[in-house]
Amino acid sequence: MPASVAAPPWPLELESEGEGAVTLVVYDERRLEERRPAGLEEAFPLPEPPLIAWLDVKGLDPGLLGPLGERLGLHPLVIEDLLTPGQRPKLEDYGDYLFLILYAFRHGIGQGGGERGGRGGELWGEQIALLWGSNWAASVEERGDGLFEPVRRRLRNEKARLRRRKVDYLAYALIDAVVDRYFVVLEQLSDRIEVLSEEVATAPTPKTLQAIHRVKRELLFLRKSLWPLREALGKLLRTDSPWISRETRPFLHDVYDHTVHALDVVETLRDLVTGMLDVYLSSAGNRLNEIMKALTVIATIFMPLTVLAGIYGMNFDYMPELHWRWGYFVVLGIMAVLTGGLLIYFRRKRWL
Amino acid sequence: MPASVAAPPWPLELESEGEGAVTLVVYDERRLEERRPAGLEEAFPLPEPPLIAWLDVKGLDPGLLGPLGERLGLHPLVIEDLLTPGQRPKLEDYGDYLFLILYAFRHGIGQGGGERGGRGGELWGEQIALLWGSNWAASVEERGDGLFEPVRRRLRNEKARLRRRKVDYLAYALIDAVVDRYFVVLEQLSDRIEVLSEEVATAPTPKTLQAIHRVKRELLFLRKSLWPLREALGKLLRTDSPWISRETRPFLHDVYDHTVHALDVVETLRDLVTGMLDVYLSSAGNRLNEIMKALTVIATIFMPLTVLAGIYGMNFDYMPELHWRWGYFVVLGIMAVLTGGLLIYFRRKRWL
Amino acid sequence: MPASVAAPPWPLELESEGEGAVTLVVYDERRLEERRPAGLEEAFPLPEPPLIAWLDVKGLDPGLLGPLGERLGLHPLVIEDLLTPGQRPKLEDYGDYLFLILYAFRHGIGQGGGERGGRGGELWGEQIALLWGSNWAASVEERGDGLFEPVRRRLRNEKARLRRRKVDYLAYALIDAVVDRYFVVLEQLSDRIEVLSEEVATAPTPKTLQAIHRVKRELLFLRKSLWPLREALGKLLRTDSPWISRETRPFLHDVYDHTVHALDVVETLRDLVTGMLDVYLSSAGNRLNEIMKALTVIATIFMPLTVLAGIYGMNFDYMPELHWRWGYFVVLGIMAVLTGGLLIYFRRKRWL
Amino acid sequence: MPASVAAPPWPLELESEGEGAVTLVVYDERRLEERRPAGLEEAFPLPEPPLIAWLDVKGLDPGLLGPLGERLGLHPLVIEDLLTPGQRPKLEDYGDYLFLILYAFRHGIGQGGGERGGRGGELWGEQIALLWGSNWAASVEERGDGLFEPVRRRLRNEKARLRRRKVDYLAYALIDAVVDRYFVVLEQLSDRIEVLSEEVATAPTPKTLQAIHRVKRELLFLRKSLWPLREALGKLLRTDSPWISRETRPFLHDVYDHTVHALDVVETLRDLVTGMLDVYLSSAGNRLNEIMKALTVIATIFMPLTVLAGIYGMNFDYMPELHWRWGYFVVLGIMAVLTGGLLIYFRRKRWL
Amino acid sequence: MPASVAAPPWPLELESEGEGAVTLVVYDERRLEERRPAGLEEAFPLPEPPLIAWLDVKGLDPGLLGPLGERLGLHPLVIEDLLTPGQRPKLEDYGDYLFLILYAFRHGIGQGGGERGGRGGELWGEQIALLWGSNWAASVEERGDGLFEPVRRRLRNEKARLRRRKVDYLAYALIDAVVDRYFVVLEQLSDRIEVLSEEVATAPTPKTLQAIHRVKRELLFLRKSLWPLREALGKLLRTDSPWISRETRPFLHDVYDHTVHALDVVETLRDLVTGMLDVYLSSAGNRLNEIMKALTVIATIFMPLTVLAGIYGMNFDYMPELHWRWGYFVVLGIMAVLTGGLLIYFRRKRWL
Repeated sequence: MPASVAAPPWPLELESEGEGAVTLVVYDERRLEERRPAGLEEAFPLPEPPLIAWLDVKGLDPGLLGPLGERLGLHPLVIEDLLTPGQRPKLEDYGDYLFLILYAFRHGIGQGGGERGGRGGELWGEQIALLWGSNWAASVEERGDGLFEPVRRRLRNEKARLRRRKVDYLAYALIDAVVDRYFVVLEQLSDRIEVLSEEVATAPTPKTLQAIHRVKRELLFLRKSLWPLREALGKLLRTDSPWISRETRPFLHDVYDHTVHALDVVETLRDLVTGMLDVYLSSAGNRLNEIMKALTVIATIFMPLTVLAGIYGMNFDYMPELHWRWGYFVVLGIMAVLTGGLLIYFRRKRWL
Repeated sequence: MPASVAAPPWPLELESEGEGAVTLVVYDERRLEERRPAGLEEAFPLPEPPLIAWLDVKGLDPGLLGPLGERLGLHPLVIEDLLTPGQRPKLEDYGDYLFLILYAFRHGIGQGGGERGGRGGELWGEQIALLWGSNWAASVEERGDGLFEPVRRRLRNEKARLRRRKVDYLAYALIDAVVDRYFVVLEQLSDRIEVLSEEVATAPTPKTLQAIHRVKRELLFLRKSLWPLREALGKLLRTDSPWISRETRPFLHDVYDHTVHALDVVETLRDLVTGMLDVYLSSAGNRLNEIMKALTVIATIFMPLTVLAGIYGMNFDYMPELHWRWGYFVVLGIMAVLTGGLLIYFRRKRWL
Repeated sequence: MPASVAAPPWPLELESEGEGAVTLVVYDERRLEERRPAGLEEAFPLPEPPLIAWLDVKGLDPGLLGPLGERLGLHPLVIEDLLTPGQRPKLEDYGDYLFLILYAFRHGIGQGGGERGGRGGELWGEQIALLWGSNWAASVEERGDGLFEPVRRRLRNEKARLRRRKVDYLAYALIDAVVDRYFVVLEQLSDRIEVLSEEVATAPTPKTLQAIHRVKRELLFLRKSLWPLREALGKLLRTDSPWISRETRPFLHDVYDHTVHALDVVETLRDLVTGMLDVYLSSAGNRLNEIMKALTVIATIFMPLTVLAGIYGMNFDYMPELHWRWGYFVVLGIMAVLTGGLLIYFRRKRWL
Repeated sequence: MPASVAAPPWPLELESEGEGAVTLVVYDERRLEERRPAGLEEAFPLPEPPLIAWLDVKGLDPGLLGPLGERLGLHPLVIEDLLTPGQRPKLEDYGDYLFLILYAFRHGIGQGGGERGGRGGELWGEQIALLWGSNWAASVEERGDGLFEPVRRRLRNEKARLRRRKVDYLAYALIDAVVDRYFVVLEQLSDRIEVLSEEVATAPTPKTLQAIHRVKRELLFLRKSLWPLREALGKLLRTDSPWISRETRPFLHDVYDHTVHALDVVETLRDLVTGMLDVYLSSAGNRLNEIMKALTVIATIFMPLTVLAGIYGMNFDYMPELHWRWGYFVVLGIMAVLTGGLLIYFRRKRWL
Repeated sequence: MPASVAAPPWPLELESEGEGAVTLVVYDERRLEERRPAGLEEAFPLPEPPLIAWLDVKGLDPGLLGPLGERLGLHPLVIEDLLTPGQRPKLEDYGDYLFLILYAFRHGIGQGGGERGGRGGELWGEQIALLWGSNWAASVEERGDGLFEPVRRRLRNEKARLRRRKVDYLAYALIDAVVDRYFVVLEQLSDRIEVLSEEVATAPTPKTLQAIHRVKRELLFLRKSLWPLREALGKLLRTDSPWISRETRPFLHDVYDHTVHALDVVETLRDLVTGMLDVYLSSAGNRLNEIMKALTVIATIFMPLTVLAGIYGMNFDYMPELHWRWGYFVVLGIMAVLTGGLLIYFRRKRWL
């Protein structure tokens, strides 16, 4: 499957940094050790229970992920998936471990620059892979932008619930960090929609239309990644894998509810955007009506005047009015009355 | 989950009063006691069966709801949900108690003021949380606007069915009070749609369009909260929790039917609104046709006259007609006949 | 639930007559007795099997239906439903009896009057409640307009199948009478659509558009009441209530098929109406094109003539053409040729 | 159920011939007898197994079908369905026999005549009822137009699979003959769509629009009859009736697949037609733009010329240019340059 | 079923080459033999396990496929399907073998030629039939364009996983080769959409619209073939046929996920195309507005000037202004001021 198509097109194209930085956190209720191993040899073997090991890999370096996958005993298809960004969100149960793919979204601040950035930037999505087994978890971030920093900080706190629970609670914390990103992005989109909604009602321009369509497209991408994510988390809730404990289930249910809620918000925003498009189009139609009214008013007033002036510009030998003393002023008067009458008429018709 | 996004956007933003007023009602078939305890100590311990205790909390005060949750033995996630408005309607069975989240809607009369209020105000929604176990029930209102006053009044009546039934009947009465609000709101929307429908048919303006879109958006919000509510009540009907007795089931079925019915009404109103939008757009198109017809009629009548007058305004030496005795009047006559003929032609074509 | 909203809006608002006329028919294979009891006392007690009693009540009189419900041992919620028109079609099994709510539709002939009546009148719907148990059936008509007269007539015929079957066959006959009404109404709508379809193709006016939208709205109401009806009858087919005998099932299946068929017809008509709307809109667009073509042709022909006449109306001292003998006629000739040429050009372009 | 509404409207109205011609074919592997019995007495009793009897009735003659139904022991509802064209396609299992209703479609060649016929005629549908039990089958054709002639011809061939199989294979052959008709009709529609698609792209007229809508409506009717047909054949596959043998099932599965495929084709064609409508509408919009551009170009060129000519037609005493030797030609030159400049300008703007 | 209709129309019409070239590959872990047998006699009998035989047939030659089907013991319906291109993708389990129909798509490079080719050519689809049993597999390509060449090349590599697995892994490899084609085609479509998207935003022409509609139609065809393919592969995953081994299941699951993903991409591209159509239409509306504004500005400026010039071209005896020394220049000045004022006015209104 060619990677570039597998991913939903444009917004998701994110260049992998490929640095392959590994962080290893080993902890139990009392101890905590954070390391940045130089090579895989330093990281393995993983500690024995009750110690929990969390390997966090940034960047999709085949030279690193290949051997790592072999050390962890991963299926060849899993390693292939890890290395190919643009996978569909999914959960797979390989018996010894669970394998979950998600997406972390973000608006690229400072990157788009210029006008684009001012409007809220472009939507970026990076593939996050999570794996966890008996007492170890591994997270593979396509890019790595501090997504899991809050989890790491909570781990350092000796009294955190995270330290007292099993590895599945760590997995929950990581999933939760990813799902929260949707709400951050949705909040930004919601703000932009509010601004655009104002713009459409007061001074719509073709740029407004383009901005609306960009929001619509971003909502589309969020939705496309939320649907399979909801499915994957639903599967996680129903799985009978030993790597999901009874105590963690309510928390997983909670994060599942959050994805359902995020989908709801996406649908609501989509409906609002569709409504804005309708308003935009019908206001364009209204403006056309206004323009045509103006043109018709102009033509209706000046065309008769032209004819009138033309008539008295004719060169007939016998045109009695031409020789009247006040003929000219009478004609000017008729013109004024005609114009005034038409103005009143159009005002009554509310065309002016 | 940031609360401000979690909630469907604008209409649902309701500032919590945060006063944290607690009302405690303790009753059985013969006794009834209503209190406003100053602190939690006064409220606990809850009375023994067959006495039933109903705790009603107004406002989302963490300093109050936290300890209350601990006293009632609630799961940490439940307490979090209580404090975070903008949850999705849902039912959760925690064994010792059932936990239900709903929304009470209302049109803000007197708040929007001005033109807005005249059109029916803005739609407001507040989160209502219900909890009930063996012989106690708790209701947490985000804002508190007398929603449960009728239930309280019925409780005071010694002969009310409410007094003779178990706590689940109280829960039913509270749910019913919330669901009834949908019908109040829908009735107001239905009235506004009738008014707008008249307006669209007779004198549509861009303001009509905006009003239609506001109604559409409000229907959208009602629908978004009704779908999960129906789901939650359906789950309540199918649950085998001991806190739902066989006698109360038909009543819960009835309230479930009401939500289904409310959804039907919402769909019907949505279809009507969509139809109005179509009428609005096609009547805008019709008006454009009328305007262009007017312009074409004007141009068709006056342009030939201009040419005719122009011809006899030419300065050729030899133009025999100019020297005819009645030339001028003949031309005026031709102009009159031409104009009359065109008017008749356009009338026949029904352009006038 | 406020009754006025509970019902789908406008078309269903039917003033209840409130006369509360009761008809009692008692029959078995050999005997038949029809009575109009003055009070409930006369009607009760109901006869013993194998005699079957059919109570038909017209109008929603609380003073009558309340006591009647108590005599028949109905659940309080059933009595509430009987008295509140605008319920959703539904089937409920209360053990001792089955409770079914349906709608009988009708086009109000003679009521709308004027133009409206000529177009087929407005759609009216009345709530019909059916109840039947061991050897009795009760029908409550919101309004009563001879809907069940054919059933009564068939009962009078001693050889009718109706007389030889159990009470469930009577229930089937009553349901069938109600469902047949849909086909009567759909036939009228189908006729109106055919007329409108002709009108749209030949001479569409804004009134055509309004008529199309009225038909669309009526189809909407029929559909909204047919969906839950189909559901209720499907539930009736699957129920294991003793008040549905094996012999009557094929007949109930037949009436169920009729509702499915009616839904099909509604969908087909809806699609036709949608197609008509498209034709209307695009023919409006075509007319606009025709109008603009006419305007452009007029302008293209007369504007050059105006300029030409204007040129020879200039007062320059030295304009040689003015002194040519045939100058004037040459200009007239040029004008004629120009006009003729443009006319041919536009005809070739099929603008004329 | 009034027959005229029960049927999807216009295209399905087919006058029954009512001739009631009966054909009886009795066969087994070795023998074959074809007869046209004058009355029912001649046809009955049906032969004993292994002989198979196929009764084919053309036209819906109550005087014939009533007694026939009684002889075959049919349920009263089945006889009613046989006599009422416009039933929904369905399968019913009456234990002793299976009852299937289908529709055979056809484009009326030679009937519509004139332009209509040239475009492919109108779509006609006739109801076909099939019944089969232990060793007999009956087919009732509403109209009869040689639909089953190919089956009859295959039966005459002693080596045909049809002769060696049971009655259910005969039923399959008859169903297959009916389903094949859909593909014939769809092929014709596909041809018409190809022609219209060409027309829309090159020279669309309002007649094109009407033709597109007629195709759309015909697809609609095919779809409305294919959905329940698929359902009925799916039920036939799952039924455990003894009148469906294991050997015939793959063939029934094949004919079921054909209906699914036909539905696919219908959907594809519908999408193509919808696309054509979009092209038609947007090309109408493009033409309007072209027309308005032409008008604007005309006005922009000739209006300044008119003003210029008007200025030098003024009668002021002191207008120095009028007395210049080459004034007239300078003005003509200015007019030519202006016109040329505007023409170049509009050409650059691609308006010409 | 007439083959020409059975297939979704135009794009899928591919002339069968009919050469009927057969390739036979016999292999196990150590041996590999490739042959092009002249006749069927050379190919049969197939080798014994553990040897695997893969028969690849190009072109739909009845004279070849008929006897081949008989040798392989295929059901008559399977042979019929093999010979009739335009089948719906499907999986059928005939006990001794599995039968799968798929489509391989391709953009016809070099065929369409000219402008068409430059835009990305036309979409072509060819039917691929796969059959496999205990130790043999057969593939029938409608046309044969090197689709399975990569599989053949992998087979030649002695260390390939393909050589060590059973025949179902060969089937997986063939299916995977076909499914990968969808991504190649989607990538090309995605590129074209990106180009068109640019074109729509900057310089849309009616050709852009046609190109958009062609992309839309091609997406439609991909979707129509992907839906049943997903269904067929889902059925393959759930089947309990002995010809699917446990080891191959994860790979089949992977290819199933790819079809789901391809469907996602198709849906996303469809939404983007729909968005482009909206932009196209509304930008056409915007251009109309611009054109009409230009026309109105022209008319508003020049019509008053015409009237003014006309007035002073009148031939009244007494028109005092005509005799003023600077009358002519005053009028010219008024004209200039009027024009300037209107230009400023329209600039303020942002019409210029």
